[in-house]
Amino acid sequence: MTVGYDGTPFQGWQKQPHGPSVQSELERALTQLLSEPIRVIGSGRTDAGTHAVAQVAHFDSGKADIQIAKLWRGLNALLPDSVVVKSLVSAPDEFHAQRSAVRKTYIYRIWNHPVRSPLWRNRAYWIHRPLDLSRLARLTEPLIGTQDFKSFQTHGTVVKNTIRKVELAQFSSRNGPLIEFRITGSGFLKQMVRNIVGTLLYLESHQSEPTHLVEILRAKDRKAAKTTAPAHGLYLYKVEYPLNLDNKCRKP
Amino acid sequence: MTVGYDGTPFQGWQKQPHGPSVQSELERALTQLLSEPIRVIGSGRTDAGTHAVAQVAHFDSGKADIQIAKLWRGLNALLPDSVVVKSLVSAPDEFHAQRSAVRKTYIYRIWNHPVRSPLWRNRAYWIHRPLDLSRLARLTEPLIGTQDFKSFQTHGTVVKNTIRKVELAQFSSRNGPLIEFRITGSGFLKQMVRNIVGTLLYLESHQSEPTHLVEILRAKDRKAAKTTAPAHGLYLYKVEYPLNLDNKCRKP
Repeated sequence: MTVGYDGTPFQGWQKQPHGPSVQSELERALTQLLSEPIRVIGSGRTDAGTHAVAQVAHFDSGKADIQIAKLWRGLNALLPDSVVVKSLVSAPDEFHAQRSAVRKTYIYRIWNHPVRSPLWRNRAYWIHRPLDLSRLARLTEPLIGTQDFKSFQTHGTVVKNTIRKVELAQFSSRNGPLIEFRITGSGFLKQMVRNIVGTLLYLESHQSEPTHLVEILRAKDRKAAKTTAPAHGLYLYKVEYPLNLDNKCRKP
Repeated sequence: MTVGYDGTPFQGWQKQPHGPSVQSELERALTQLLSEPIRVIGSGRTDAGTHAVAQVAHFDSGKADIQIAKLWRGLNALLPDSVVVKSLVSAPDEFHAQRSAVRKTYIYRIWNHPVRSPLWRNRAYWIHRPLDLSRLARLTEPLIGTQDFKSFQTHGTVVKNTIRKVELAQFSSRNGPLIEFRITGSGFLKQMVRNIVGTLLYLESHQSEPTHLVEILRAKDRKAAKTTAPAHGLYLYKVEYPLNLDNKCRKP
């Protein structure tokens, strides 16, 4: 299933002992509709306040006769307004929302204006000083490629392999004061996008050159990187899977 | 002052005995900052849930030595995240936010997609059937001009003169499933925009022709018009004043 959500009312994707999460809303609705305990597995976690345009998740069911179109309508009727299942398909047994994912795209939105925006307050990070977009564009260049992103990993998870491939990292401003940073890669470490954005904005404010970012990457140490950008500017935008798995999904 | 707000948490612009309003938030902040009771007068009311990109309001103060830039910063520090004062200027004595206004523009947003949008849930009216934009464009034609809009006035206010001039009424879709209706006129009756949008959507769904809208206008009776579109799709977008008043405003 492809899931969209406004992250504002949630403690994040993952089930928490206290407070609402997207995963628990989906599990509650599916468990009720299918009359069996359902566990939902997402392509990855998102932090409290982070949004999703298209998160992907799967679940296993013991039932063989699920009517997908009916289940999809039932789900969207039971879910709160802040979460929607955009599509629901029957996936092949070998599909795993997290382990099968081959590429992810995130968007980070910045409201770059002297005056804060009430309508973007939970949807974009407000920066009032005018950003130097050409410097930001130059600063993104060292990010591209297959390399160790350990400096941009927040502690708390033990991931042995911190090598990731970033294919695209790009700033754009087509919509007035709203600046978008888009990043596509083979996968992302814990808070990697927020740490990258925070560091890029720090380097921009200090008129640093791309060589500074190269040094941060080479240090392979979180302490070398700078601040973490707030969660509410971040959107999980797309999760991609191998074509052979996509082709095996049966639409209702 | 020009004021932007997310209408979601408010009972509307106007002060209410119960529940928060934009006017009361502004009055509370100004009264505190100026240490005198302040009453804020807006260009007009907006309904509960309706947003403003640029509402205009004024207040009178007994103080002669107000430092406008300082007051502006103080206001935005005291106001909740859902309201912002975008600009604050010293207006001439003859300026009145409501009576001096000569032109207003509203935008009404529709999320036109089979699946609802969590991120637009309080910001656009969800219509899942595909809208016929060319029919909607034709249906807007009879709205243009100076005429009696009594059929589109919600009861509850006694307004003697229901003649208004509509200069522009236009649908556009530049942003995927998001459809925008923009209307500019000399002034608007109570819930006039919501009644117009609700009626246009009703006529579109019944494949009606513009002559039907002409009949509704001629009836001069609210019962001739159709449904009222929900408040949360509506944005007060611009309020305009005579150039001679604009020119007399002193910026900080």
